[in-house]
Amino acid sequence: MNLVIIGGSDAGIAAALRARELSKEVRITVLLADGYPNYSICGLPYLIGGQTPDARKLAHRTTFPDIDIRLRHRVTAIDPVEKSVSAEWPGGTTKLRYDKLIVATGAQPVRPDIPGADLPGTFVLHTIDDGLAVLDEVQRHRSGKAVIVGAGYIGIEMAEALQLRGMHVTLLSRSDEVMAGVFPEIGAMIRERLTAEGVEVVTQAGVERIEPGLAVEQRLVVFTTQGQRYPADLVLLATGVRPAVDLAREAGAALGENGAIAVSETMESSLPDIFAAGDCVVTRHRLRREPTWISLGTIAHKQGRIAGENALGGSRTFEGIVGTQSLKLYDLVIARTGLSDTEAQEEGYEPLTVEIGAWDHKSYYPGATQIGVWITGDVKTGRLLGMQMVGRSGAEVSKRLDIVAAGLFHAIAVDALNDLDLSYTPPLSSPWDPVQRAAQDWSYAAGLTAKASLER
Amino acid sequence: MNLVIIGGSDAGIAAALRARELSKEVRITVLLADGYPNYSICGLPYLIGGQTPDARKLAHRTTFPDIDIRLRHRVTAIDPVEKSVSAEWPGGTTKLRYDKLIVATGAQPVRPDIPGADLPGTFVLHTIDDGLAVLDEVQRHRSGKAVIVGAGYIGIEMAEALQLRGMHVTLLSRSDEVMAGVFPEIGAMIRERLTAEGVEVVTQAGVERIEPGLAVEQRLVVFTTQGQRYPADLVLLATGVRPAVDLAREAGAALGENGAIAVSETMESSLPDIFAAGDCVVTRHRLRREPTWISLGTIAHKQGRIAGENALGGSRTFEGIVGTQSLKLYDLVIARTGLSDTEAQEEGYEPLTVEIGAWDHKSYYPGATQIGVWITGDVKTGRLLGMQMVGRSGAEVSKRLDIVAAGLFHAIAVDALNDLDLSYTPPLSSPWDPVQRAAQDWSYAAGLTAKASLER
Repeated sequence: MNLVIIGGSDAGIAAALRARELSKEVRITVLLADGYPNYSICGLPYLIGGQTPDARKLAHRTTFPDIDIRLRHRVTAIDPVEKSVSAEWPGGTTKLRYDKLIVATGAQPVRPDIPGADLPGTFVLHTIDDGLAVLDEVQRHRSGKAVIVGAGYIGIEMAEALQLRGMHVTLLSRSDEVMAGVFPEIGAMIRERLTAEGVEVVTQAGVERIEPGLAVEQRLVVFTTQGQRYPADLVLLATGVRPAVDLAREAGAALGENGAIAVSETMESSLPDIFAAGDCVVTRHRLRREPTWISLGTIAHKQGRIAGENALGGSRTFEGIVGTQSLKLYDLVIARTGLSDTEAQEEGYEPLTVEIGAWDHKSYYPGATQIGVWITGDVKTGRLLGMQMVGRSGAEVSKRLDIVAAGLFHAIAVDALNDLDLSYTPPLSSPWDPVQRAAQDWSYAAGLTAKASLER
Repeated sequence: MNLVIIGGSDAGIAAALRARELSKEVRITVLLADGYPNYSICGLPYLIGGQTPDARKLAHRTTFPDIDIRLRHRVTAIDPVEKSVSAEWPGGTTKLRYDKLIVATGAQPVRPDIPGADLPGTFVLHTIDDGLAVLDEVQRHRSGKAVIVGAGYIGIEMAEALQLRGMHVTLLSRSDEVMAGVFPEIGAMIRERLTAEGVEVVTQAGVERIEPGLAVEQRLVVFTTQGQRYPADLVLLATGVRPAVDLAREAGAALGENGAIAVSETMESSLPDIFAAGDCVVTRHRLRREPTWISLGTIAHKQGRIAGENALGGSRTFEGIVGTQSLKLYDLVIARTGLSDTEAQEEGYEPLTVEIGAWDHKSYYPGATQIGVWITGDVKTGRLLGMQMVGRSGAEVSKRLDIVAAGLFHAIAVDALNDLDLSYTPPLSSPWDPVQRAAQDWSYAAGLTAKASLER
């Protein structure tokens, strides 16, 4: 049995490891386009920011038990009839037969379609090679000017990274606020934190074109749609990613949402004996009616593991996501799960969001800090729809949010958060955890408490 | 409608607040034996240790909207036929009629039945008055000797508190290890941490008697069953608590497990119109067949809130606990949920426990620390039974454990932890959270992975 995997990042390696765990017999070959098997691309901002001085430390692991990893193999074609893949590598070309194939080709960055987006000095950030190129550039322009186009997760993490390196950073957000994925109040807190560190944040700033600068100290100039101009030594285009599906599409695989590869819940593509997993496939969202697409390492690991199991004859299903993400910015932690108001409305819910502030632990014990909690529920049914949280590093914000992520996974009511038996000791929490306090305030605001009262 | 509540700690006040939230009309009277409405007795170690210099800060709240709080009212009898309670207070005696009564009399400390257990200089720690008395004594003997009898949560927290105050502390544990509620390996880590701070920890040390000391610098002497003797300026008896049920029993209420008041899942006692909640009642444990009894503020808050709602005609049910508890000791955090091996065996499960070590976040980002995770599951069914965790403060140990507590609440399989969509960013976690890594190792160790493999 020959298992061939295209892609050696999170999904590809998770698949290979799971297959090896389940069978000693299967022959596993992983084809990597680059030279970095299972490196953590989420770690690139820390490589560039200097917290992680050695790129090799970004490897999630360095041993791959009895897995044939082929570096710098760029797959050029999948032949689903012959059941083979062709690849180019520094030594020439090669063709591999497969019994089962797993496509884990990931995502690729989107360069905005504007003049000058590929001038020298403009960068995207997705692969380890991208990261090394940016790092090299940063080290050349330590006190120079950086312009970041796009204020999502990567843009924001990179603003911190480049600021920590001593650069003057301008972060351009097309929207009214940074970080479209969270409530605007949270976006404002992120913006204020960046501003306090000296990052220049410009909202409502779409980019029109990038031009070479005229003076030596002005390598590039970024022009916004509002007519502002920002000189830059380095321009980072953090305008999102799209699924990398060329190979699968050319082989005839059906595509779905956002052009990602359509897969069954067992991670099978429309082509026989071809599975797909990770950033290149559509994803089930447990709170949405239609499949969605999202590029995240946690999802890639899960889907890869399932594809690896099922390629060997298993029948495990991917149970879907609930939209959990987190971000650390300086000493601030932001985390979200579920749907926001707007997203919930799109899905036909009748959302209400309530915001509370609460101490992370009993305020009589030193070091207590405030956590902001936004809880969203459906007023028609009382169902929990989502939560967003902001607090200081050390306030257990990210794992506290995960309590709610676990609840969302089981489709609980807002009110049912109060039933959970959560840990409490004064230095670490309160008898009612902030997520429960939020649930109580939500029920009250939603009139569900009053309604319950009237019924009697 | 007259609602009378006996007890003004967690359960009593939670009941009063919930009743007030649901109805503006009900008349609510709370009778407190002491003068500290809704003070956090869990905070006493920090009052004594000095982290919380002002006892008044221990109040969970200081406003009680339209609730008639009567301090220093010691209830002497409940008459369930006349529907009244009698109380003594500094101004005389009083009798109150009720339509609905909530008994929230809490727990009381157990003084061991040994000679000398009530000598001057011996203390228990349960009420705020107890705490103030110990504090007063500590301030008199700053560099003196303290002997703590009992190495459970309170004993251990108080060992830190008294050591921080400069006392020489001896902690006596009757068992082979400290902290019977966790795995012995974790107990050993706690013991080593205490020892490193200068606390003398003695295991297998039952106490036989306490005698007055013969010299001035030796106020008391504690004799163990092994024949050791420990001189002490202060002896703290931290040998547990029992439910305070005298009033309810004398009124004819049925008692259950550990002599606690038997209640229905709607928190009703066996007597008409009398509810009971908190440390004085039995508790449903979702992983056990029989009701149990446990004294914890989180449970008291939940049960009180439900009793307050149902006393007004509601029908909310207490959904039970899963055995979640946490402890902070210096910079160490210990947390547990569910059942240990031994407890699981008592319930007829076939438990297997697997231990792993994992980084709290990606080790390439500064500040990563190791978390020890013990996961227990039933090998017959694959059901998740429990988890215990140890890590550094800041590693989000307590709320990370709560993810598992939320899962246990929904009776999931160990393997289902892998399906949870948990937050990840390199400075705060890993693509597979440590709780998921533990689940994967458990499945492998339990042979469930191999079994799944063979079936195909």
